[in-house]
Parts: sequence; C-alpha cells; structure tokens
Amino acid sequence: MAYALTDLQHGKAEVRVVKVDRGSDDHVLHDLNVTTQLRGDFATAYTDGDNAHVHATDTQKNTVYALAREHGVTSPEDFLLVLAGHWRAQPWVTGTWLSAEQYSWHRLPANGHSFVRSGQETRTALVETDGEQTMVSAGLTDLVVLKSTGSEFHGFPRDRYTTLAETDDRVLATSVSATWRYAGEPDSYDAAYDAVRAAMLDAFASTHSLALQQTIHAMGVAALDAVSEAGSIHISCPNKHHFLVDLEPFGLDNPGEVFYAADRPYGLIEATVLRETALREEG
Amino acid sequence: MAYALTDLQHGKAEVRVVKVDRGSDDHVLHDLNVTTQLRGDFATAYTDGDNAHVHATDTQKNTVYALAREHGVTSPEDFLLVLAGHWRAQPWVTGTWLSAEQYSWHRLPANGHSFVRSGQETRTALVETDGEQTMVSAGLTDLVVLKSTGSEFHGFPRDRYTTLAETDDRVLATSVSATWRYAGEPDSYDAAYDAVRAAMLDAFASTHSLALQQTIHAMGVAALDAVSEAGSIHISCPNKHHFLVDLEPFGLDNPGEVFYAADRPYGLIEATVLRETALREEG
Amino acid sequence: MAYALTDLQHGKAEVRVVKVDRGSDDHVLHDLNVTTQLRGDFATAYTDGDNAHVHATDTQKNTVYALAREHGVTSPEDFLLVLAGHWRAQPWVTGTWLSAEQYSWHRLPANGHSFVRSGQETRTALVETDGEQTMVSAGLTDLVVLKSTGSEFHGFPRDRYTTLAETDDRVLATSVSATWRYAGEPDSYDAAYDAVRAAMLDAFASTHSLALQQTIHAMGVAALDAVSEAGSIHISCPNKHHFLVDLEPFGLDNPGEVFYAADRPYGLIEATVLRETALREEG
Amino acid sequence: MAYALTDLQHGKAEVRVVKVDRGSDDHVLHDLNVTTQLRGDFATAYTDGDNAHVHATDTQKNTVYALAREHGVTSPEDFLLVLAGHWRAQPWVTGTWLSAEQYSWHRLPANGHSFVRSGQETRTALVETDGEQTMVSAGLTDLVVLKSTGSEFHGFPRDRYTTLAETDDRVLATSVSATWRYAGEPDSYDAAYDAVRAAMLDAFASTHSLALQQTIHAMGVAALDAVSEAGSIHISCPNKHHFLVDLEPFGLDNPGEVFYAADRPYGLIEATVLRETALREEG
Repeated sequence: MAYALTDLQHGKAEVRVVKVDRGSDDHVLHDLNVTTQLRGDFATAYTDGDNAHVHATDTQKNTVYALAREHGVTSPEDFLLVLAGHWRAQPWVTGTWLSAEQYSWHRLPANGHSFVRSGQETRTALVETDGEQTMVSAGLTDLVVLKSTGSEFHGFPRDRYTTLAETDDRVLATSVSATWRYAGEPDSYDAAYDAVRAAMLDAFASTHSLALQQTIHAMGVAALDAVSEAGSIHISCPNKHHFLVDLEPFGLDNPGEVFYAADRPYGLIEATVLRETALREEG
Repeated sequence: MAYALTDLQHGKAEVRVVKVDRGSDDHVLHDLNVTTQLRGDFATAYTDGDNAHVHATDTQKNTVYALAREHGVTSPEDFLLVLAGHWRAQPWVTGTWLSAEQYSWHRLPANGHSFVRSGQETRTALVETDGEQTMVSAGLTDLVVLKSTGSEFHGFPRDRYTTLAETDDRVLATSVSATWRYAGEPDSYDAAYDAVRAAMLDAFASTHSLALQQTIHAMGVAALDAVSEAGSIHISCPNKHHFLVDLEPFGLDNPGEVFYAADRPYGLIEATVLRETALREEG
Repeated sequence: MAYALTDLQHGKAEVRVVKVDRGSDDHVLHDLNVTTQLRGDFATAYTDGDNAHVHATDTQKNTVYALAREHGVTSPEDFLLVLAGHWRAQPWVTGTWLSAEQYSWHRLPANGHSFVRSGQETRTALVETDGEQTMVSAGLTDLVVLKSTGSEFHGFPRDRYTTLAETDDRVLATSVSATWRYAGEPDSYDAAYDAVRAAMLDAFASTHSLALQQTIHAMGVAALDAVSEAGSIHISCPNKHHFLVDLEPFGLDNPGEVFYAADRPYGLIEATVLRETALREEG
Repeated sequence: MAYALTDLQHGKAEVRVVKVDRGSDDHVLHDLNVTTQLRGDFATAYTDGDNAHVHATDTQKNTVYALAREHGVTSPEDFLLVLAGHWRAQPWVTGTWLSAEQYSWHRLPANGHSFVRSGQETRTALVETDGEQTMVSAGLTDLVVLKSTGSEFHGFPRDRYTTLAETDDRVLATSVSATWRYAGEPDSYDAAYDAVRAAMLDAFASTHSLALQQTIHAMGVAALDAVSEAGSIHISCPNKHHFLVDLEPFGLDNPGEVFYAADRPYGLIEATVLRETALREEG
C-alpha cells in the first residue's frame, strides 16, 4: 500500500550555549538552550536512507556555536533571527522552527564577573520561517505567583457531580506560561520582554479575582497594552490548589491561615487574547 | 482598545485514577492519569468573572471518578469516549480535549492481586470532540530502544560548519514517541495498541538503518500495516547519541565497544506517515 | 580563628558508560552510570589551591572508560572492584567511594543486537575502600509494587491529632529502595542480585500485610534467606497512598474499586534487617 | 535463622504546609515542605504487624498542620523545634529526624498579599533529637553561581589516563549545597541563614580560584566567620563544566566567549570546615 509523508523536520535540540561578553569589566552573560528544526525537501532520507539533503544535526549544533561567535548574542529573539537567516539560505530548506530558553543571572556586587542564578521563570523565544515569511514570538514559563486573599470563586453551575463549596476568599496560586506573537518589531526584544512580564505581574496582583479565567484575561490585556507590537498572547495557567486544612477535629479554627499545597490534580485554564487586527489576519 | 478572546478552555489536569476490577481472583488494574479540557461558551468568566457557564474543574475531577465506577474502564480510549459522551451533552460545551496516560503492571505469580510496574513506556490516548465530530488517537512515549550495530550515517552534505565524520557502524538509540489517529474503530483498542507497539519494535530491530529518518519511516509504515484502522501516525525520535570514546591517548583501541551516552544536545527527527486516503481528507 | 577540614573527597559523578560485548552475534549491553569519589591527602588544594595531590576528575572519568576497555564489564560490582584496585594504588589516596547504577535492556527477537529498555527499577552497586578494607554493597531503587487486597492497617494508637480510620482492606503500594551489604563474596553478583530481587517480590506478594513495616521486614528476611553472603539489608519504602474515592455524594458505592493515587505527602518507612553475626561485627 | 532489626523509623514525608500570617495588611508567607521521622520502640510492627506503638504517619501529618496553627511558624528551625518538643513527649519515641525545605517569595508592589516565587535556591532545616539531645542544622541547596573569569586549574598530577589541559582562565560554575550545624542558638535563625548565604556568595565571588576545592574552603570559612553559633559546615559542589567550544575548524577564534554548558558527567567536590572546638567534640 502506498503511504504519504508529511511534517518532515530534523534538527538539534537543547544546544546549551553560554556567550560571555567581555567588552568591559562588567561581563554580560547570555545563557541559552537552543533548539533548531529544519523543514524542507528531505523525503528520500526517510524512504531510502539517502542523506544527500540532510543538514546533519551535528552541523546545526556547530552552526549555533559559530554564529554566536560571529554575530554575538543580544536578545534570544535576535539570535534566532540570525540563525533563521542562515538556514533560510541553505538548499532544500523551506522553513525553520527555532526556539530558545534563556536563564537569568544576577551580577554579584564583589566584581563584574560573578553571578548568581536568579528568578524562577524561564524566558522563551521562537522564530519560525516559512519561505519568505518570518514569525517572532516570545514567552515565559514557570512564573510562579500567589495571592493570599483577593480571590473568590462562586456562581458556577452545580450538577450531580458537583461538591465544591463556593468561596469568597481563597488562596490563588499559579505558574504562568505565556507566549506572545509579534505583529511588528519592537525597539528592543529585551525591553519588550521586561514590559510584558511586569504588566502581567501587576495585573495578577491588582485584579480582584472572581475566577482564574478573569485573572488570565487581565494579564493578557495588560501585556498587549504594554507592548504595542505584540499582536496576540496565549496564556496557560494551572490552578495550583491551596486547600484550607480542616482543623476542627483538633478543636482549632483556621481563619485562612494554614493551607495544604496540592500537586495533582490541578485545574488548567487557557485563553488567547488578541487585537482585533490580529483576529482579522488570522481569520 | 478592544481585544478579542479565542482558544478558551478549562479542565482538570492529571487526575490519577486507579480502577481495580475484582470480578475474579485475578484482579485487573487500570492505572490512568486523565486530563480533561472543555471548550465552549465561557467568555464571560474571562471578561467579567461570571462563572455561570463554568463547569468547575473540581466537578470535572469528580465526574472522572464517578464514571470510572459507573461505566468501568476497559481501554483508556473507551473510557475517554465515555467522558466525551458525558461532556458533549452539557450546556455551553462545544468541544472537548480528553487525554490519558496509562501505566502498565505485571501480575506477580504468587497470587492474583500483586503487581510490579513493568515497562519503561507510557501508553497514551486522546479523544477530541468538536460538535458532533469525534477523533480518537492513541500513542506511546518513552519507548527506549537501541541497536548496537546495523546503523550507518553518511552521504550528508558538508558545509563550512560540518565536522561530523561519516560512519558505517554506529550505535543507534532513541526514545520513541508516537501518536496515531484512528480513521475507523478497531475491534479492540488494547489489541490495536499492542499490534502497533510490536510492529514498531520489530521495524526498529529489523531495519538496517542508513538514517534515523529511515528507521522512523519504517516504524510508521509497519504501524499502519499492522492496524488498518490507523489512518496516520506521527513519530518523534530524539537521537540519543552514543559516542565512541577515543581511547588512543591511553594506548587502547576501541572497536565499537566503549561508548559515552550523552544527554544534551540530541538530534530530534520527526515525521508523519499517512494513508493516501487520510491525506486526501486532510488536504 | 583556626578551622579544621574533614570529609575531603572529589571525583567524577555520573559517568555514563555503555560497554558492548561483541563476542558473539548476541551482543551484550552493560549500561552504567558510574560515580567515583577519592578520599585522601588533599588538604592543600582546599587551603592553598595547590593541586599537586589532586587526581583531576577528568582523569577519573578517562580511567573509567579505559578500564572498561581493558578489563571489560561483567557485573557493576566487579567493575567497581577493578576501579577500586586501580585507585587504591595511587599516591595520596586513602579511600574510595565508588557507585554505579545499571539500567536493564531486553533483547528483541529480530536479531542479536537490538534492545528495548525494560523494567522500572534501577540496579545499584557500591564499593567503598578504606585502606586495605573493601566493602561491597548492592541494591535497587524504584521497584514499584502494588497489592490490590491483602493489606490491613489498624490497632495504632489514637491521640488528639488522629483522624485516620482503621481498615482491614486497603491498596498497598510502594517503590522499594534497598541496599544490602555483602559479608562474603557470592559466586556471581548478577545471580545474587536476581535472587534478592525475586525474593523481595515474592515476599511482598505473599505476605498478608498488617503494616507496611511488616512487609518490609518480610522482604528483608527473604532477601537474607536467599543470598547467604548478604550480611544485612536496609529497606526504605514510601507508602504510596491510594485513597478510596468517596462516591456517596454521587449516589454510588465504591467497594474497593476506584482509587485516587496521591503524590504527596507519603508515609516513609525504613528498617535494616541483619544477621546476628553482622550485628556483632557492627556493634 | 534469627535476624536482628535496627534503624527503625517511620514518618510522613513532604507535608506541604503554607502558613499565612495575616496580622497586618502585609501578609507573610511561610511555605514549607516538612518531613517527619520518628525513632523508637516499634519492632513489633515489623515482626508481628502489631501497630500498638506506631504513631500513624497520617497522625504525624495532622500534627504538622495543627501545630502550625497553634504555635505559628517563624523560622523553619523554630517550627521543627516545636514539632520535636511534641514528639519527644510521646510514648515509645526515643528520637526524631525532622526536616523542612522553605521556598522564598517576594512581595509584589501592588498590595500586601501578592507574591512571586523568587530565587533558585531552597533553604533547608533539620532538627534531630536523641533522647534529651537536640541538634539543629540549617542549609541550602541549588544556589547556582558562576564566574566568567578569575578561575584557574593547573598543577595536578598527570598519569597515563590524564588528558586534561591546564588552564589559567576558565568559567567556574556550581550549584552549592551546604549544611551547617549549630553549636549554639543564634538570636535569629532567619538572620543567621541570611548571613551565611551572603557570606558564601561573597566568598565565591571574591576568591580568585585555583581549584573548586579552594573556593569551597573559602565559602566554608566565610560562613563560620559570619555566624559564630555555626560549629561546622559541610559543602558539596558539582563542577558544572563550561567547555570552551573549539571554533578553529570554522576559521574562528574563541577568546573565552562561547561555551558549551555540559550536563553529565560533572566533577563533585566536598568538604567539611569546622571550628577546632567542634572537632574536639566530634573526635
């Protein structure tokens, strides 16, 4: 029977590249985890083991390191764009999917070359090309936030399987994952990242929450308000449940003080907020 | 500025449910990790914190446990179909995305109720509904396989950044992730799973490999050959590099005997193999 | 103020070495993760940065690979003994702590050189030397077992903070970690490992359990009964709680059929079982 | 054959307790992961399944939550001391091993009750009792630090298996794990923790390193200098290798700019620094 082949891609995943800028006594660290994926005319490798069109993943890894030296690393988005430019020009490549995680470091006061890893969250970047088209996205994962009050949950429908009590004061905790797509190029990807992150944190804190959905929407709106080049943002938030412990059997009250932080299961809430212009384009 | 909202979904992730069938002295274990996601008319929860349409994720969790009791669990696919049928009938729900991992246990010889976890791989299942449409997929992850010979890699293009030597005998190791979509309903999802797994293992072993791409294609073809109801299969394989250690500095040869198993980076190769009928439908 | 220094050690952790025996068409895989630690006269590296006595951890890694080629790998214990013999003869080294994890592979039927990773558990080995003394231990981790009946728990003391109900039928599940110390050398470390593993599995299955403690004791006794060279065994078992789900709110009974497998917290029970001869020596 | 039993202990591991102090509008979070282990006269549970002396691990969990409410949580050390006082008074308990991890949160500026998880490292505390004796230790894990210059490594012995080049400028990176034992009670465990952490970071940064051993020693000395109640400190540091990428094949130099951050294997260096008074006591 004849079968067809689609979705062919190959690349090198998790290339850990640390670039040190030594231009001044205050060194600058760029600590990235880069994944490359090439798409194109690679079918004979699958059907016949003919590798004449296969850009070896080892070569892709070497290219990441060499271009980090030749072009430097400013932001992860800019570095992925350099890689995209390189691969787009290669034979048999019709598209790319290039991603990076960036880890943050805080310089210690003693001198300009000592650092401590800071923050819980990981910054992410994604550059996709398809022929002449280029799409740039940025994001973050593992931004863990918690409100100890200012969160309610009630008014949901009750059916045969509903046992959850309504509450007008609960702990709300989540680990934010977000990805926003750039409709235009910001002046600085680093500054845009910082602006989105700050806007989402502030929206999380300042929204009196009637549902995690509402908080997600507020964070998405705040992000798009903060960076006009961001056309849409997708946000995914686990509801990291903090259950009030029942201390009555021990003769104790528990006025919102002692909680059990559960692992699994967890609520999982998602949405995309987008400018109406972006909606028109995607439609 | 007005923004739009899309991709709304909410559910309970990683509901760990263990169902014991005690119908005979030989107990049967169904050990699942279920995630539910509902799609539908939920926008006011996001925009106004109005939860009147929100099927609480806690209710979704309860439903998983209750339906496990009411309907039992045969295969993960069948159980997700039961859940899909329940949720499809609820108000404001227009679609669902329901997934499960299943862990395998081997019965110990001493009696019918003692088990040891077996196998490295995790079986997966996915049921999506969109209105009246229902799509069933199955898969596996973490199926770790290795060939100590019978694998070559050469003939790839060489550019400025290529340093990799060609080889006609290397260790080939990978951790297979695969998902196949059912175009029709098999007699038994369990039997179909076993047939696909066996076919992929045999194809991995018996294919003399000129590229991991070729092995992936062979596994995909074997899977579709084995189960006629499977319309397409997507396979993703990291190339878990085993580098021959250079022992020359120590005055030793190394005729394919001592390897360093590397973690990162790793090659990552993907493809979808599909029946031409499936291609026509998707096209 | 003058400070003292103790517990000095350095080595290479997690050296992944895969040794392929190609003596016949049926290849044999030895897949190890080796950690070396040397103890000795290394203080000036700490106090003055003088490395004249420091066997570089890179050299230790090279030594692992070279000795795998020169001496081969039979069992992990035998290989660590080869390493111990090498390091014991080096200047400034007064002791060693050498450990290995071994991963198991199952040969596929198609030919003699294709394998699938099998089993959940990891085999461990540990060789310690202190001057002329040599101690050999073996073990396993992540041996996950479950009984769906044949387990009770009652008769425990009740105080102000006790709410747990007594039960005469529960699911008992754990992930066994065990380490046994050899008082003498067995004919075969591989055969001894297999015998201990089989004895523990059978004891787990065949013991009607009134407490996880009792099951641990039974497994320890069975292990020592099975291998006369094992002088003592330490066993650590999390109680992986499977809670019966309360389905009464949904109008359903739950006669031991539907369980929630919890992650955290978990009971943790430990003990060492030892021959009286071993007790006298350790006393 | 008669066997003996030792090292009996049981408890509840990883009790996740979050205590919110609501005394003012600026809430305070104490986010702990507590593990309890009781030692004592528990042998009949092992040998006969007689639980009359077994403080159920569920009761231990309840006790953690109840005492968090009754006594509050100031520092993790103080909370573990409360637990130790409770358990020491129970029948059949002769000793305890109580540990906690504490996760740090940073208050967001918008209000007093919104927080973001901060820092990479985890603070740890350990209280052990043995009859009337009480030992308090504190520590940290996953404090990840890096120097982009100011680190050398040379002068180590070379043997048949040595290939490592000497270097007078390398990247030095590690993830510090440390535990210090209190010989006396500090005014504040929180202040003492902060002082040790700051002293270690400063020592890491300001020590021109000829060996990771030397840096460890400097961190240990700085910690003991900073907190006079700390009698000894054990430090364990993986050498998280950052290898300079060889760019010569691509016609590029690499003057300390582009590095590959490796995962495994890694050097592992350990030592204990202790006051001479502590040494005399331990001797």
